[in-house]
Order: sequence, then C-alpha cells, then structure tokens
Amino acid sequence: MKRILVLLAALSACLSASAQQALWGGPSVDSPVINADGTVTFRYQAPKAVKVEVTGDFLPTQKIEGEFNGQKFSYDAPGVRELKEGQNGVWEYTTDFAVAPDLYNYTFRVDGNSVIDPHNMWVNRDVATLTSVLLVPAEGARSDLYAIHKVPHGTVSKVWYPSATAGFDRRLTVYTPAGYETSKAKYPVLYVLHGIGGDEDAWVTQGRATQILDNLIARGEAKPMIVVFTNGNISQEAAPLENSTGYTRPTMQLPQTMEGTFETAFPEIVKFIDGRYRTVAKKQGRAICGLSMGGFHTLYNTINYPDLFDYSGMFSAAIGVSDTSVSPIYQDFDKKLDTYFSKKPALLWIGCGSTDFLIQSNRDFMKKLDEKGYPYTWMETDGGHIWRNWRIYLTEFVPLLFK
Amino acid sequence: MKRILVLLAALSACLSASAQQALWGGPSVDSPVINADGTVTFRYQAPKAVKVEVTGDFLPTQKIEGEFNGQKFSYDAPGVRELKEGQNGVWEYTTDFAVAPDLYNYTFRVDGNSVIDPHNMWVNRDVATLTSVLLVPAEGARSDLYAIHKVPHGTVSKVWYPSATAGFDRRLTVYTPAGYETSKAKYPVLYVLHGIGGDEDAWVTQGRATQILDNLIARGEAKPMIVVFTNGNISQEAAPLENSTGYTRPTMQLPQTMEGTFETAFPEIVKFIDGRYRTVAKKQGRAICGLSMGGFHTLYNTINYPDLFDYSGMFSAAIGVSDTSVSPIYQDFDKKLDTYFSKKPALLWIGCGSTDFLIQSNRDFMKKLDEKGYPYTWMETDGGHIWRNWRIYLTEFVPLLFK
Repeated sequence: MKRILVLLAALSACLSASAQQALWGGPSVDSPVINADGTVTFRYQAPKAVKVEVTGDFLPTQKIEGEFNGQKFSYDAPGVRELKEGQNGVWEYTTDFAVAPDLYNYTFRVDGNSVIDPHNMWVNRDVATLTSVLLVPAEGARSDLYAIHKVPHGTVSKVWYPSATAGFDRRLTVYTPAGYETSKAKYPVLYVLHGIGGDEDAWVTQGRATQILDNLIARGEAKPMIVVFTNGNISQEAAPLENSTGYTRPTMQLPQTMEGTFETAFPEIVKFIDGRYRTVAKKQGRAICGLSMGGFHTLYNTINYPDLFDYSGMFSAAIGVSDTSVSPIYQDFDKKLDTYFSKKPALLWIGCGSTDFLIQSNRDFMKKLDEKGYPYTWMETDGGHIWRNWRIYLTEFVPLLFK
Repeated sequence: MKRILVLLAALSACLSASAQQALWGGPSVDSPVINADGTVTFRYQAPKAVKVEVTGDFLPTQKIEGEFNGQKFSYDAPGVRELKEGQNGVWEYTTDFAVAPDLYNYTFRVDGNSVIDPHNMWVNRDVATLTSVLLVPAEGARSDLYAIHKVPHGTVSKVWYPSATAGFDRRLTVYTPAGYETSKAKYPVLYVLHGIGGDEDAWVTQGRATQILDNLIARGEAKPMIVVFTNGNISQEAAPLENSTGYTRPTMQLPQTMEGTFETAFPEIVKFIDGRYRTVAKKQGRAICGLSMGGFHTLYNTINYPDLFDYSGMFSAAIGVSDTSVSPIYQDFDKKLDTYFSKKPALLWIGCGSTDFLIQSNRDFMKKLDEKGYPYTWMETDGGHIWRNWRIYLTEFVPLLFK
C-alpha cells in the first residue's frame, strides 16, 4: 500500500505546480467565497504587491466620460475596490453588502495589471479578454436558471456548416434538448445571435444559454427546442483559437460584420439546420433573437425574411449603429416593416436597460411601431449594455416561444 | 458616419477594460511571439514587480527530488527562466534556442505567484490549474496535426448518458467525423480515457485529439471513426464547473477512481454509444486507449471484456499504481490475460517515456508478455509523464485502427 501511495503522489506531482501545492501542503487560498450572510470574499496572494484591487459587475457602477473623434460619450463601468493585505501576503476584500443572486464577471488588478483569479477555475473569454466568473445562485431567484441542476441535459455540439457566401466552413454551436435523440418528433428552432465582440461560444459561456434552456424545459416553462448559436462575423471561420488562423487576435469590428453580408447569407444557415436536424421547417417553428449587434442582425433578418421567423427578440439591439446605406438588406426599411407586420408575426419582443446608451434608438424604433399600431412586447430593466440584462431577456423570451 | 463611429466606440468600450485599452490606445504587449528564427518571446507588463519568471514544458526540465511518507521520489519538472524588465515595465524573455514545433503549456511567476499570460487568450484547464498554451506548428512536423486547418471538421458534442451504476447522468465528449451526419454508413468507435486528474474535456483541450482526428482523417492516414472521451471519475457527473456541485474544487483522487467501479460500469457506456450512434457494434469496430490512470483503465477494460475491444492502447499506463485487491476487476490477472490473447486481438499498443516514473512497471508488464510470447507494439519516447508524449502516442495509435 505504501508503494501505491508513493506512486500516486508522484503521479499527482507530475500534473502541475498548483496541483503539487495542494498535495504537498502549500498555501491554500479560497476565492471567491460566498459567505452565509450573502457577502462575498475575494482573496489574492501577492506578498510583494503594493496595491491589489478587484473590479467586476457585482459592484455598483461608476460613470466613465470621455471624448472620441471630437464627440463626448459616457458609460457605466464596473466599480473598483481595494483589497487589504493580511497574513502571508494574502490580500482580501469582503463586500459590505449581500451580493444579489446573479452571475458576475470580475478580475483583480495587481499593481495596475489585470489578472484573473488564480484560485477560481471558472474563466470566461469575452472577445480577447479573460475574466473570472462568480455565480451566486439562490433557489427561487432568476440566477438559479444559470446554475447546473440534476435535470435532463441537452446535447451541446460544435458543428461546421459549409458557407457558400464565405467560401469556407463555419462553426455553429447547436443545442438539442434532452430527448431529441431518442424521439422521432420534429422540433422548433431558436436562432441566437451574439454582439459585436462575440462569437458562437458567447451565449453558451457568458450567456449560460444551455443551462437556461435545460432548466426552463425541465420546469415545463419552455417547449423543448433546438437552439442554434451562430457566428455573426462572417469573415471568421469560428471563434478565436478555433479557426485556422491560429493566434490572430480578434478585433472589435471585423470586415463584413455589419454591412449586410451576414443577413444576406442567413438563409444558408437555416437551410443547413433544416437539412441536418428534425426541425419544424416552417415559420411557425422558427424564432430568432440577439443582443446588441445580434439584435440589429435579428431586426434585419426578421423584416427581410418575413416568412422565415414567427418570433423575434431584440435584446439591447444596436439600432442606428451601423451605416445602413451599405447594403440592400438595410434599405426600404418602412416598406419591409409593413410587409412583416402584414403577415401577423407571433411575437416581436424588445428589451433594453434604462441606462443603456442604445435605449434612445430603441425608444425611437418603438415610437415608430406605436405610430403604425404595430404590436410588440417591451421590457425595460435596470442597468446598461451588459450580459446580466441579456440573460434576463433570454429567460423572459424563451418561455413565450412556440406556444 | 461620425455618429456611427461614436456609437461603435461606445459599444466596444462596454465590452471590457482590455478591449478599451486596445481601442483607446493603451499599452500593447504581444505575448507569446514566435520569432522568425524559431525562438519565442514572452512578455509580461508589471512595472512594480520585483521578479518575473516563466515556466513551462518548452524549457529543459529540472529534476525535483523529495520524500513522501518516508520514501524518496524524484521527477522532472519544467524549467524556469527570469524575464528582464524593459521600457514601460514590460518584462521580457526570449529563448536562446529555437523552440521545437509542438504544443506547450506555460505560466508566469510574478513575485512568486503563478499567473497565466494575460495577453494570450489560449488557456487550458488541467484539473484545477489554468495554464497558457503555446502552439508552435510547422509544416511537416507532428505538431502540424495539433493545429486547425481548413479541412472538413468533425462535430464535437457534450453528451449526457444515464449511468445506472452512478445513479445519475454523466457527461461524455463525442467526436463524430466529418460526413457522419450525411452518411448512412456505420462507423467504428475509439474510446479515449484520461488520467487521474482529468475529465471528459482533457483529451480535447490538452490532448488536441479532435484536431488530430480531423487532420489524420483529412490526410487519409486514419479511417473516419467516432471517438468517445469518457469521464473516468465515476463519482462525478462531469468536469469541474459542468456539474451540479458548482464551485467544488476537484481533488487529485476522487472516491471510486481506481477501485474497479469505472471498469465494471464501462459496458453501460458502450451500450449507450451503440444505441445512440450508427456504430460498427462488434469487437472489430471498437478500440480503446488511455493515458496514465486511463492506461490502467484501458488494460483492465481490455482483459476483462476480451470480446469488446480489438485494439488497445496503453499510454504511460499507471500499471502497479492502484491497490488491485479492491475489486474482482483487478483479480485473476494472468488468467484474463491468457483468455484475451487466445482471442487474437488486432493490436495491443504500449507507449511510455524513457524518464517516466512508470516505465519500469511498463517494462515489467512487457517482460511478462514476452515470456508468454504475446504480441504487442512498443514505442519509447524521450521525456516523462507529460501531455507531449500522450499526443504523440495518439497520432501513432489512431492510424493503426480499423484497417
């Protein structure tokens, strides 16, 4: 038995430096810790650091103002708090408030450098930035939908479709609900679109969409449906590091991002999905939604293809952001809107945060709808252009589909 | 157009602090950079740091010796190099040698604290440890198989199977090769098992197994096959953060890891896969391989089910590590071995590194095979108990299957 212990120890020791620490009794730092009173403690070990801070969307926001190309702008940025150094160089900060149940992103700033929490394995990539994740679930709270429960789980697949428009294969994330594989039934399809910095992974990592779907379906609050997460940057094969360009760093706005190509090519994705999966391949069986740029894409996919989608969800939609003169997709807007509503869609759902810099554009759009007497569902939430809101909108939108 | 630029800027600014930096002209630090002469430069910005080091398996190893429970041990650990501080607090180290084409893991040590490279989005989780990834591909080199190319890509799915043994659903990673979905053919299946600290993600992230399969199949060097990556810790639903236990940190040895339960329950996975996928559901259509603990699991699955697998690969197999008295699965070893070979399996493949602490156990096993005149294929490589070797073994093993 002694020999076995030694070999096991050696086996473990080979794995990594941190693993060794845990095994050989090195310092143990727990972070983040959700305390019994709902406060959260963050810890970072750095005996030689001068200043350690934590920043994240669990803190009240601070207003950032600036100027770009001669025009002023302002937006709400996450707050920042200092950690205090304690024993063994372990810095610590505990919130002076109970953190509301939700999913948050945070990073440390060690002497000004942004670093993720080395003691928290849960890391999300958003565009080219890594952040640590804090999930505060609570029974009965909405964030309970973001947690993994012992319920039947759908299958989450990375699937490549041949894009005739792009001239190469492109990657999708596809969720098939629990039971799909053992059923003969046809399933409705929801297409979910990301924002300008995202990709086909974003809604699954930052958005917790597959957990939300698993949980809503298990509770009987949503119909079992296939969900397709597209990549809206049509010049890309796939998310960073998942394509043949290797380390190439993603940029904020890629070529062919908001100039009509993605929307023009969207039917090739729908055709691929209808060919590959057992779908309800008609308008009544299709929904589409998206956040920010994806809300913009949703709007134009919806009105350009009035026979394709019966349900549309615009989440903090980037209306008015792009140069709409660049593509026929963006032209004849009012006429297309009239045609779309003349076909009596089942649902147009609009959500935006009250401090989102895009709320005025969304209000302008709804004013137009009101003037024409076109029906829509509106949800205004606190806060700005943030994932917290987009997760909320998804949990509100999905239960309304295919009823 | 100006308004659009401002809105786009605001849109981008909302994304994250780092994104802002890139947009607003903050410091730009590129790391890692593969230079034209094959050296690699690592950079880390930390104006107030006292000492910045880099460690990783791209460096020559250093021998670590220690004592555990009164017994001495030694193993090869990655080397460490100091970075030098330059302008703007950017620390830098360039290797004094061309880094051989391969896939490596590295981390920085900033005043003793292990941190991943904040400028490199490519992060792998191995057990509870995050590391940055350096891929040096080169045409003609083996590591070219680890890179993503514009070849047909298989589908990679996270699939849950009901485990009667565990009493809950458990997660698998399943690779179906390009063409599977549009074909009516039946496909052979390779089961791939991880080591003691791994899970159903390990071979896909650290092992680059799906890239290896895509590339070998595209080159015509491997048959199209389904590949199933299991989770060998049967007390777990899934990889850390993918199960209902939330933040619970994984430990080195979980309950039910090497005491026979996983192997006893293995046929329920095979049955699930044969039920779910179009498989060649017989011995000739099944292969199994695994690294370290997974090599141990492979050995016992192979000899306990002599009619199940025609091809077996033991990669740095942890022979002799576990207490084999705990389960009937581990008993009557020689008798089971005789039965297995009497059925003339297509391939028993064994690979181990020359400095692996497990090489003697593997040599002892092969001596037994030699004495009995049982055939096997043997590959010895440089180095120890490391992913570099396991990727090599997979690229050697897979082309031999189902021929």
